[in-house]
Amino acid sequence: MRFECPKIEDLNESNLNKRLQEKIDNKTKPQGSLGRIENLAHSIGLILGHDTPELMDPQLVVFAGDHGLASRGVSAYPSDVTWQMVENFLAGGAAVSVLARQHGIALTVVDCGVKHDFAPRPSLLIQKIGYGTADSLETTAMTDDECDQALKNGAELLKRLPGNALLLGEMGIGNTSAASLLMSRLTGLDIVDCTGAGTGLDAASVGRKIDILKKVLASHADSSEPLSVLAAFGGFEIATMVGAVLQAAVERRVVVVDGFIASAAILVASSLQPSVIQRCVFAHRSGERGHALMLAYMKVDPVLDLGMRLGEGSGAALVWPLLVSACSVLRDMASFESAGVSREQENISTGSPG
Amino acid sequence: MRFECPKIEDLNESNLNKRLQEKIDNKTKPQGSLGRIENLAHSIGLILGHDTPELMDPQLVVFAGDHGLASRGVSAYPSDVTWQMVENFLAGGAAVSVLARQHGIALTVVDCGVKHDFAPRPSLLIQKIGYGTADSLETTAMTDDECDQALKNGAELLKRLPGNALLLGEMGIGNTSAASLLMSRLTGLDIVDCTGAGTGLDAASVGRKIDILKKVLASHADSSEPLSVLAAFGGFEIATMVGAVLQAAVERRVVVVDGFIASAAILVASSLQPSVIQRCVFAHRSGERGHALMLAYMKVDPVLDLGMRLGEGSGAALVWPLLVSACSVLRDMASFESAGVSREQENISTGSPG
Repeated sequence: MRFECPKIEDLNESNLNKRLQEKIDNKTKPQGSLGRIENLAHSIGLILGHDTPELMDPQLVVFAGDHGLASRGVSAYPSDVTWQMVENFLAGGAAVSVLARQHGIALTVVDCGVKHDFAPRPSLLIQKIGYGTADSLETTAMTDDECDQALKNGAELLKRLPGNALLLGEMGIGNTSAASLLMSRLTGLDIVDCTGAGTGLDAASVGRKIDILKKVLASHADSSEPLSVLAAFGGFEIATMVGAVLQAAVERRVVVVDGFIASAAILVASSLQPSVIQRCVFAHRSGERGHALMLAYMKVDPVLDLGMRLGEGSGAALVWPLLVSACSVLRDMASFESAGVSREQENISTGSPG
Repeated sequence: MRFECPKIEDLNESNLNKRLQEKIDNKTKPQGSLGRIENLAHSIGLILGHDTPELMDPQLVVFAGDHGLASRGVSAYPSDVTWQMVENFLAGGAAVSVLARQHGIALTVVDCGVKHDFAPRPSLLIQKIGYGTADSLETTAMTDDECDQALKNGAELLKRLPGNALLLGEMGIGNTSAASLLMSRLTGLDIVDCTGAGTGLDAASVGRKIDILKKVLASHADSSEPLSVLAAFGGFEIATMVGAVLQAAVERRVVVVDGFIASAAILVASSLQPSVIQRCVFAHRSGERGHALMLAYMKVDPVLDLGMRLGEGSGAALVWPLLVSACSVLRDMASFESAGVSREQENISTGSPG
């Protein structure tokens, strides 16, 4: 049974749009003076369908999986680090654990296909498709059935999560390679411009990584449709994330996109359903080569630019309080009328937002 | 009795420096992968003199004052908005009130010289030098005695505040003009490059503002020493802020600098004592013309770049959770050893931070 991609509606509600803008412009501040925070307030209002949006019960999901291609030396770290870091997430010692705790964000780790058997834990969901994907230089990383199953797993797990915001995280040694492959094939951009140092390869190793990725691309030259591209390059965690994102978009949750890998999942999802992007807030521009170009391709502008390149959802967690701020401004700031503050003098102000 | 500028020591503690870097590099993440957050952790550790720094009891102080020059139409808003916004801060309806509340930051408003008499309130400090500065086109904005008194007021009020972090905010119709004048004179940059739309002037009004500021500069052509420049151009709130910043630097508090006006105060303070800048975190690059250039002049790189131009301390409050994150990462993240996570493989990684 094939995965049925849901239809994501265009968020084009002119009444709400107008109401949100009026409300923002009536707050006690020069028009447009909160810059990007005003845009965020507006976007979140549109996504949640309310002129006083409230973010509730945020869920950060770390999708984890291993990659067959990792055995070819495309990462600075061994595959074992995937499961070791899953343990670290669950024990509360990883960056994303610390940041999620700081902001009261629920953290769930999903084993989408890690090469390891985990003991059950309250914050761990087992949705294992296999013990790592196949080596995409030899065959497709996933079979079509595996890819379908991962997409369905993502949609199903999302349905069971509370709240109205999904923060995307991931862990998978080798998954910058999968993301670069997806990016190159879906955008048509040269693999050289889509490939970076990942966890920290030196220049020579990046060169070798690119050589391998070129061969992988050539061996799947006939894959072009988004889901067959996804099956060809993997991974389990990216496919599960795509399923979760599509379901979150159906439910009009705010999707907070982390870095290069999470953005690659959005690239796949939006290749299927372009309006997915309207539900997304892009947390940051990663230091990983390729990410800036990927964001530009999707015509989106991230909130932060801090040279981060960790993944895990660390950027999504870091930007979270700014999203809460945007909603607080909309909900709690006084209007000129209610605060008794004089408006700008005529004839010397632009009067326009920005 | 003249204000005695304290001596601000260079923070050059090579042992602590090394300890901080080792600690950051031992956390379970590729070296440098938390980008700017790692630098922030390092800086805050150096300022607070501890390899596990903890930010405590943050104090956001909004320095408020009026400007004689405002009567010449250099702002889109009337001077009355200064006291009206002070009331709004105290009532909890302004952007900075909302953001400070979100993050548990104590908010104090200081009347440094507003053209209004306020009823006493718990969060309001009265340190009034006068009812607005004098018109700097006619005379110096402040007398030397007034400037001295403002500096002392700032130092004294800071001493009474708890905690180890000072977030700078301000309110004063006309104070972008004062900041532009300070900037132009202290940096030698053309006033045209130092002047923006403030609260939202249209292009023609910005032109008129620049014409006025040129005349003000010419009428104080002989002022060049930082404190006489400060007295010449004002304002009371900027001078009080400079006093507070110098005292905060003495006490090694973290100074979180907001936008254009707060940065102008740092420009004055660092013209007196260059090592002040080591105690500062620059919250954001403002949308106000001149700010980017001012930051570049001081060779500092702000954390956020969100096109904000509100002042009040809104940018400082917005960046606050990222500073807390930086300290949390340093304190709560596991090391490779404690988490049992494998290190990178040899010969294929750069091994260097960044």
